Amino acid sequence: MSSKAAIIGAGLIGRAWAIAFARGGWSCALWDPDPDAASTTRESARGLIESLEAEGLLGEPVDAIMARIDAAPTLNEALDGAAWMQENAPEKLEVKEPLWAEIDAVAGSDTILASSSSAIVPSKFTETLSHRAHCLVCHPLNPPYLLPAVELVPAPWTDPATMAEAERVMKALGQAPIVMQRELDGFVMNRMQGALFEEAFRLVADGYCTAEDIDIGIREGLAVRWSIIGPFETGDLNAPGGIRDYVNRYQHIYVGLHEDQKRRVDWAGPVLDDIEAARREKLPADKLGERQGWRDRQLMALALHRLKARERLGD
Amino acid sequence: MSSKAAIIGAGLIGRAWAIAFARGGWSCALWDPDPDAASTTRESARGLIESLEAEGLLGEPVDAIMARIDAAPTLNEALDGAAWMQENAPEKLEVKEPLWAEIDAVAGSDTILASSSSAIVPSKFTETLSHRAHCLVCHPLNPPYLLPAVELVPAPWTDPATMAEAERVMKALGQAPIVMQRELDGFVMNRMQGALFEEAFRLVADGYCTAEDIDIGIREGLAVRWSIIGPFETGDLNAPGGIRDYVNRYQHIYVGLHEDQKRRVDWAGPVLDDIEAARREKLPADKLGERQGWRDRQLMALALHRLKARERLGD
Repeated sequence: MSSKAAIIGAGLIGRAWAIAFARGGWSCALWDPDPDAASTTRESARGLIESLEAEGLLGEPVDAIMARIDAAPTLNEALDGAAWMQENAPEKLEVKEPLWAEIDAVAGSDTILASSSSAIVPSKFTETLSHRAHCLVCHPLNPPYLLPAVELVPAPWTDPATMAEAERVMKALGQAPIVMQRELDGFVMNRMQGALFEEAFRLVADGYCTAEDIDIGIREGLAVRWSIIGPFETGDLNAPGGIRDYVNRYQHIYVGLHEDQKRRVDWAGPVLDDIEAARREKLPADKLGERQGWRDRQLMALALHRLKARERLGD
Repeated sequence: MSSKAAIIGAGLIGRAWAIAFARGGWSCALWDPDPDAASTTRESARGLIESLEAEGLLGEPVDAIMARIDAAPTLNEALDGAAWMQENAPEKLEVKEPLWAEIDAVAGSDTILASSSSAIVPSKFTETLSHRAHCLVCHPLNPPYLLPAVELVPAPWTDPATMAEAERVMKALGQAPIVMQRELDGFVMNRMQGALFEEAFRLVADGYCTAEDIDIGIREGLAVRWSIIGPFETGDLNAPGGIRDYVNRYQHIYVGLHEDQKRRVDWAGPVLDDIEAARREKLPADKLGERQGWRDRQLMALALHRLKARERLGD
């Protein structure tokens, strides 16, 4: 018997989660406050699932996966019998608060209640709920069916058993969960991304290099390695005695660089004119959509490569 | 007629550069102050070139590439007729200074004189040289024949024509040059890596997540995307109106996170016990060497995938 997921909010993230759960064998009930959105989104999911099939990323026919995605007419019917609820409302507390009150009123007592929130910590919209022990943030990168990392973020009242079950479910779907010990603004990934961006904007603003130079250094350098072994394993393998040896050898270099990192550059200042000009030279504004399609095809090809490399070489 | 590169210093980085230049059609003269090192290193390069062939990364037989690598008996003979000199001495000014004086004394007037220095800026060891206008840092990630990004860093007296020629040579070898406008401690890549590490150590030290969670977030998330499109292109494609729209929508989130980034955590403090324990649980110390081999096979497989994906999907 397959498990059921209620996907609440049928925008881009809701659609992506429906694909991830349905591909993982779950039946998905999509619901959106806009009465037409769920069925429209269900139909538009087909094209994406067909792309996954074309890239060799599916183990079964498109129709078998589509058959597990339904549009639910009401929130109540979406949640009925669901083992997991994934909320994908706009990133606004005034939207999330009343929606979560509604969800709380009809959710089953065993349902895991997860939010795709990327910037609002879970305590902000779950404190007064009767099911608050079963609530957490489960924040994906987009789209989760191609980027495995997801952040599991507890509120202070989230039951550890809920966190453990969320971790189990995500792993079974093929996601790679980060399990936070307690909530924090930006979670883990946006904090890492932010730290990198701060340095990138500073280097361009100070005239040391261009935005394209930054992208080259990451795309053709650091991220190639990081995509195989993360930063800590990189350090661990870059000194004969492992990570402790790496820190003892090289920390002094990084200490000297940190002083500059205290100085923030306004990303929207004059540097943005340079960065935007550099981007528009590489890619005219009217090609942004086409390039997003290219990125998604590259992501799919890379996902398949990673599966095959893992099979052949281990992980 | 092929160009000649003098590879000065026959350690790991010198060997890697010899492979990169020889694969790119250059004849390479390897020289090291240790009289046996150059020929030993030449022989050990064969195994690596054979691995590249096994992974489908060579366009010609191993022997054709090996035939372009020679051990030179003297520095003078190594430099004779060389269009490019790549110095790979230990990262110590007291070693680099006298070596560069020797190189300067015998270098041809048209030779590009490059250092693999990762932490010493070029002004520190080139100021008094007669060929200082032809000197720069050309800093690779290791190994450059698998990781294309290289940093070209001028001293204040480096001729712009030298920088332009260095960029042309690196591109012809298949590298992806970052062209810095002026020197700066840490160059570009170590600064980006340092900013990311500072946040990573802070998150673990503050108990929000484990070292493995950090590696998951990068390896299974951010770096997957960054390895296709760098961070600025990521932002450019993540908002309908491109990078300016992205900054206008999301900068406020990152501003809030920056305050914490001013606080540095000692990487060698108690956090290192936790990180080392987490790493040793994933990988016992006696398996570090084996894992480095695994990383290199993964890097080769990924390099081939990237070449093929670029051919099929464009870049």
